[in-house]
Amino acid sequence: MNVEIKAQERIDELGRNGYRILQDPDRFCFGMDAVLLSDFAKVKRGAKVIDFCTGTGIIPILMEARNETASFEALEIQEESADMAERSVAMNGLQNKIKVIIGDVTKARDYFSCDSYDAITCNPPYMVGQHGLVNPTSPKAIARHELLCTLEDILREGAKLLKQGGSFYLVHRPFRLTEIITLCIKYKLEPKRMRMVYPYTNKEPNMVLLQAIKGGKPRLTVESPLIVYEKPGTYTKEIYDIYGMEQEK
Amino acid sequence: MNVEIKAQERIDELGRNGYRILQDPDRFCFGMDAVLLSDFAKVKRGAKVIDFCTGTGIIPILMEARNETASFEALEIQEESADMAERSVAMNGLQNKIKVIIGDVTKARDYFSCDSYDAITCNPPYMVGQHGLVNPTSPKAIARHELLCTLEDILREGAKLLKQGGSFYLVHRPFRLTEIITLCIKYKLEPKRMRMVYPYTNKEPNMVLLQAIKGGKPRLTVESPLIVYEKPGTYTKEIYDIYGMEQEK
Repeated sequence: MNVEIKAQERIDELGRNGYRILQDPDRFCFGMDAVLLSDFAKVKRGAKVIDFCTGTGIIPILMEARNETASFEALEIQEESADMAERSVAMNGLQNKIKVIIGDVTKARDYFSCDSYDAITCNPPYMVGQHGLVNPTSPKAIARHELLCTLEDILREGAKLLKQGGSFYLVHRPFRLTEIITLCIKYKLEPKRMRMVYPYTNKEPNMVLLQAIKGGKPRLTVESPLIVYEKPGTYTKEIYDIYGMEQEK
Repeated sequence: MNVEIKAQERIDELGRNGYRILQDPDRFCFGMDAVLLSDFAKVKRGAKVIDFCTGTGIIPILMEARNETASFEALEIQEESADMAERSVAMNGLQNKIKVIIGDVTKARDYFSCDSYDAITCNPPYMVGQHGLVNPTSPKAIARHELLCTLEDILREGAKLLKQGGSFYLVHRPFRLTEIITLCIKYKLEPKRMRMVYPYTNKEPNMVLLQAIKGGKPRLTVESPLIVYEKPGTYTKEIYDIYGMEQEK
């Protein structure tokens, strides 16, 4: 389907099902975090999924490619980002599979039914407050800093909308792991699977992937380390596989 | 110093300062967990340290070799283990540096002063309850299962004895990480440093090392992965270094 593409926008190929996505380098371009979360989040056939803080819709678009029977709703507070998400969904012919909703995640229960979803995904703003921000109303600041929502908002609302046994899938920074785990427990989202993402085998992790199950029994499986680079400029085989790219020889 | 060595006991070399330790294969022999914890736990000059659940005293003996100005108290409930720890301490001439105490960690505040210690180390029993145990009174069962103490006992008592700003150093199983973190927070021990120990780069971690600081500010540093084996039968360089062994060529 042909959609309008604005002057400052570009089209990125996604390496899955021939899907593409609109990106605006002046706003916020999706990162590896979103790609890894869309791979980490496993949903069953026919699952009903919400993506919180969807930005330009990268996570539901990538997840739809792997989970064709699932249906997705994508919540975004910034109108321009939501508009880009909607045009990307249309560009890939996914209007029947992914519904974009403009709205505030801190009141997500106003837009969605409670106790109704199989999975919620979220690649939220990582940074606390507006420390060091020059322009706290810029799209990049809103995507990176907890200006319009906090981790607690996201987990509280997610817990409300998930079915019993439904999964919250989160990507975040390891330095906030204590808070992530204590908030999950507060809202009865039991951490069940966790994976640390390390840039190199001798570096600190810069991302953590987490699956927490509403009402789940306590027992966490920490998975094998996800190592990003084999050497500078060369991803590991697992990263090439997740991106659906051929490894360079 | 010559000490009595019983028929079933053997002497293991420790690769640090020429230190040695008595072990009884019919009881519980120390594992890599204790060696890694003694390396992970960093203490300052002159620190006052307690090791909970010390068993045959491996952790304070190894830590003394790296921290010669520190003083150690080692708490153990099983008399025979404590007796072996005491004889190992004497064998290494460390009677002035490491004091072995027979006692129950669930009442640790009866043996030690509150708010007084710089660091507490613990390689506790990992398994919950007595599921699958044939002989719940055996020394191995007591060392492996939470029969005589729980994780909560250990953290609660540790928090009581540490100074403000003192560190609790724990090695445990990753599957209990949620409980570890929530109990640390309950007792105001803030997780500050964490390291996952992976047998291989493509395997799940089987140990987690944690430093939690009494009254610390929230912010966790997850460190680089500690990988144990380069290939079957060959440790990584880091493991050889921690053991103080020369790498085989």
